[in-house]
Amino acid sequence: MLSVKNVEITSEFWKRYRELVVKEVLPYQWDVMNDEADIDISINPQGDGRNQKSNAVANLKIAAGQMDGHHYGFPFQDTDVYKWLEAVAYSFEYHPNPDLQQITDRLIDLIADAQDDDGYLSTFFQIDAPERKFKRLQQSHELYSMGHYIEAGVSYYEATGNEKALEIARRMGDCMIENFGLEDGKIHGYDGHPEVELALVRLYETTNEDKYLELAHYFLNQRGQNPDFFDNQNKADGWDNELLDGMRDLPRTYYQSAEPIKDQQTADGHAVRVVYLCTGMAYVARYTHDQDLLEACHRFWNDIVNRRMYITGNIGSTTTGEAFTYDYDLPNDTMYGETCASVGMAFFARQMLNIEANGSYADVLEKELFNGSISGMALDGKHFYYVNPLEADPEASQGNPGKSHILTHRADWFGCACCPANLARLITSVDKYLYTVNDNQILSHQFIANKTQFDNGIVITQQNNFPWEGNIQYDITGVETATSFGIRIPGWSMSNYSLVVNDVQQELTPQNGFVYLDITGDTHIELTLDMSVKFMQSNNLVRADYDKTAIMRGPLVYAAEQEDNSAPLWLYRVDTKQEAQVQYESELLNGVVTINLAAKKEKVDSDTSALYHELTIKQESDVVFKMVPYYSWANRSDGQMMTWINY
Amino acid sequence: MLSVKNVEITSEFWKRYRELVVKEVLPYQWDVMNDEADIDISINPQGDGRNQKSNAVANLKIAAGQMDGHHYGFPFQDTDVYKWLEAVAYSFEYHPNPDLQQITDRLIDLIADAQDDDGYLSTFFQIDAPERKFKRLQQSHELYSMGHYIEAGVSYYEATGNEKALEIARRMGDCMIENFGLEDGKIHGYDGHPEVELALVRLYETTNEDKYLELAHYFLNQRGQNPDFFDNQNKADGWDNELLDGMRDLPRTYYQSAEPIKDQQTADGHAVRVVYLCTGMAYVARYTHDQDLLEACHRFWNDIVNRRMYITGNIGSTTTGEAFTYDYDLPNDTMYGETCASVGMAFFARQMLNIEANGSYADVLEKELFNGSISGMALDGKHFYYVNPLEADPEASQGNPGKSHILTHRADWFGCACCPANLARLITSVDKYLYTVNDNQILSHQFIANKTQFDNGIVITQQNNFPWEGNIQYDITGVETATSFGIRIPGWSMSNYSLVVNDVQQELTPQNGFVYLDITGDTHIELTLDMSVKFMQSNNLVRADYDKTAIMRGPLVYAAEQEDNSAPLWLYRVDTKQEAQVQYESELLNGVVTINLAAKKEKVDSDTSALYHELTIKQESDVVFKMVPYYSWANRSDGQMMTWINY
Repeated sequence: MLSVKNVEITSEFWKRYRELVVKEVLPYQWDVMNDEADIDISINPQGDGRNQKSNAVANLKIAAGQMDGHHYGFPFQDTDVYKWLEAVAYSFEYHPNPDLQQITDRLIDLIADAQDDDGYLSTFFQIDAPERKFKRLQQSHELYSMGHYIEAGVSYYEATGNEKALEIARRMGDCMIENFGLEDGKIHGYDGHPEVELALVRLYETTNEDKYLELAHYFLNQRGQNPDFFDNQNKADGWDNELLDGMRDLPRTYYQSAEPIKDQQTADGHAVRVVYLCTGMAYVARYTHDQDLLEACHRFWNDIVNRRMYITGNIGSTTTGEAFTYDYDLPNDTMYGETCASVGMAFFARQMLNIEANGSYADVLEKELFNGSISGMALDGKHFYYVNPLEADPEASQGNPGKSHILTHRADWFGCACCPANLARLITSVDKYLYTVNDNQILSHQFIANKTQFDNGIVITQQNNFPWEGNIQYDITGVETATSFGIRIPGWSMSNYSLVVNDVQQELTPQNGFVYLDITGDTHIELTLDMSVKFMQSNNLVRADYDKTAIMRGPLVYAAEQEDNSAPLWLYRVDTKQEAQVQYESELLNGVVTINLAAKKEKVDSDTSALYHELTIKQESDVVFKMVPYYSWANRSDGQMMTWINY
Repeated sequence: MLSVKNVEITSEFWKRYRELVVKEVLPYQWDVMNDEADIDISINPQGDGRNQKSNAVANLKIAAGQMDGHHYGFPFQDTDVYKWLEAVAYSFEYHPNPDLQQITDRLIDLIADAQDDDGYLSTFFQIDAPERKFKRLQQSHELYSMGHYIEAGVSYYEATGNEKALEIARRMGDCMIENFGLEDGKIHGYDGHPEVELALVRLYETTNEDKYLELAHYFLNQRGQNPDFFDNQNKADGWDNELLDGMRDLPRTYYQSAEPIKDQQTADGHAVRVVYLCTGMAYVARYTHDQDLLEACHRFWNDIVNRRMYITGNIGSTTTGEAFTYDYDLPNDTMYGETCASVGMAFFARQMLNIEANGSYADVLEKELFNGSISGMALDGKHFYYVNPLEADPEASQGNPGKSHILTHRADWFGCACCPANLARLITSVDKYLYTVNDNQILSHQFIANKTQFDNGIVITQQNNFPWEGNIQYDITGVETATSFGIRIPGWSMSNYSLVVNDVQQELTPQNGFVYLDITGDTHIELTLDMSVKFMQSNNLVRADYDKTAIMRGPLVYAAEQEDNSAPLWLYRVDTKQEAQVQYESELLNGVVTINLAAKKEKVDSDTSALYHELTIKQESDVVFKMVPYYSWANRSDGQMMTWINY
């Protein structure tokens, strides 16, 4: 079967991000995890206030018997190391680094030393609660943590050939098989935080051992079969010994364990759990053809994308439980929109693309890549968002407790540090999101410039200055066998694009978002996408966005900042009839296209005006309203930000 | 000095409320406090989930040695009984009830029996923590509880002549004097919840004993002098023994104890605490002429009324700490607006009127009486709101945890049952809010029909059908000495009213909101107020109300309910150019004037429409938008409610 051999990302936009991760993010994270970075983790509101240090590497050393001490941090602290390791593994594919590889090889040795003889590894339980292994699955994150290692170990093996890294992962999988399943004497359960399901499929892909796929399938089928499972486990172990404060009060839907997946109709609960679960479901469904799982994937996808997703791709409408709420409830200033959830949504979209050539999956993937995920990191690579709001006001964040989780500047690090490394592994592996291949077919999903070799000899060179410009060139060479080449026409350009193949204008009807060409020899393709500024609106069942417009250009959602405009931003009303002024500003925010809109601004009422009075005629003046790409907000001064604006 | 001798309320609107309290609310509350009502207190979200019963009367019996058992409920559970007793005392003045008075006389005996020899009374501490008396003032509510008794005891004495009731209050005051003050050996502190200050002034007024006024003055001056006072007390007693969960994490501003009152610039913290404190400050300032206190009254008044008050008079923008947030932060769907806070604001306004003849105080008082306070009770007198939102949606209350405190139907009772009895005592004493008198001057503040005798022989009969109609008639008889009569011209009618005295049209310029007439003999006055429908707007620094309008008629704010209109309510856009249709509907909601507005309603997008798409032309149809008085909302079906609407 046709496969991708090598992808070189040539996109200026993404090369910068990928180099930033290599030069700044990964060294910085390594220092943090070794408690050698000069930051105060405790100050961050998205931490829980108890974490004064990371201790993530030290926990492994203690578990390995190389150090004395107690475990420190969350029960899932190990995953910081694993996600970092996974990101490093991907980075080696475009940025080999023998010095760093010495460090990571030693880290693999350390992890192997920390692993129990039976394959178990969770430093929290090994060090401080060995009698509770697998007895508190609702909150223990044991399978979640090992799942993250499996992803890292497989990736590291694939990048470096380190057999030990893979062996650790195999032994973890075998430990799970030993302990979980429907057989008598095994635990008829699963992890409170889905993740291990998708990881086990990766282990299956690399090892070709069916047992790992079967275990993943078991975890998915078993979920919610006995809604009392977690409660019963907790009670059996001693109810008062909660691992994570406040989590026992969360409803079962938070854990997607209230009923079997096939009966779950809506995407409920903790957003990251949902999208990790969905990724695992799609992954398993692809190999097992389990129709119940596939239907659940479609059901959840539709619920999220059509009723519960922000225009930036962010998901999670409430900070309480970092969760989904209900259909069309998309408040912009109290939302959550966790960076990890957008990363997870990208995973889910990629898995769906692997099942089905449908451009709507690639549209969402693009939305996540260019908006909701990368907004989680500052342009300096050293500051991060856990929460990505669509509207923010420093005064509100400081003054209204219901908005205290909304930061108007990114933080150094988090007590719960899931997001930075999750984003790093997405960015370093973005080359894996560009194509899917089936038999004699290559599908190009994204306009991220690249040069890619396929194992049938085909080389595709995609050139562009995306997302700033919409002219996309493909050069296809090395064609030995006739191959079908599908190019995604994005939803935002569907009604206005042009396609020229070897200088001949094409009039093809897209099928499920793709146009298909039969490639038999060297081919030059010029695709021109619609980069006009679009005034968007939401379905009017969305209370928060009613009578407002969001500005998009290509895949990018735009945001207005106080830095470029004067507060309060809600007094602007943009004129949707006048043409937007678009300009590439090379010195601004590492180079961005800005949008200037004709607008009216209402005179600000004075502090001494009456709080309430009869309607008066607005005193407005003509002004310019300047907007920057959403992902680039909060890289300058602290101030108000708004994406849905009056018109 | 001139004083009010007797007020008979003849207003149909208020007579109904006052009879409802006598016939429904007070008997119902008595049953609840004796655990004889068939309700489940625990189900209510505004309770803390731990209260399965009231036990309020039982606690007194246990403290009096008449029963065995432990205290049950909040440390301030006693105040449910006291506020009820105060309301009953007021009701005797218009609705004598010998049978009930037998019960309340016995209750006074019970309270006397429960009181310690030194005058102390707080059943929680007496029963279960006698060693902690006055040692945990931050959360103990001991002075707060006794303060509520003092108010009740003084009122009961005034209504019935029961000397024992007053004696209990005196002994409480003496107990406080014994324990609190700047002298060595006394506690240099004050209560975490202001209330006792205003109560002590009432005790001073009734007993003429300066020592009670001085103690009130001491409590106000001492507040915040040592910001560590509460923390030091808690630590000395044993920090981990928190009386009320989560309250130790609240900032000092929550308790108005971060700095001395004279240095406090803004109205911060728990809204009820703030307005009780302000009431005490104004009360003490009136008698002591303390300029620092008076300035603080003005400062807090202006901050609340000009920057932190909802158009309905509700205050408290966040559920976290039931508190104020920051200037102009007035979200409608996540707010608190506690019923008690509106009741307290009415207290504050009345005290300011006693200091200064300024119509703006009476305007706010009217706003509270006709909107934010009475919305706390259902028309059946058996269901209550703790939280009074200006926008509500059952789906949001159920589906978004940030709105779970917003109920779309009133509850049976509350675990923390401060509001129902607080509202009852306001309604039963509303006759005390109509006039202030100074030397030879009578000021009429409210358009609540009444017949009032003054001790100089003057009788004023005010007749009207307010708030439904705006023609107000005064007949003044029995004039022996020339008297100045001030009539408030409401802010909402200032630009359009007419005043006819003995058939002669008057053209008087209001002074600080009052027109003044010299009355020398029988006088007939016809005042006609502007009852046109007003389209209001807020200062545009209020984000939540920007580009929206609220509808008022006279003192009433109007609300739209799903019962009368079709959801979603945000798709309506009222036409402010067309005349509103006003109609008195006698069968609706005990008789209300409804308002029908010409409006456009946008076609509801279907569930299958794209979540986001390019702006399209609105598909609107001409409809009627029906509104009812805000106070009367949620007396029919569960549904959406909105006060600030699109236009």
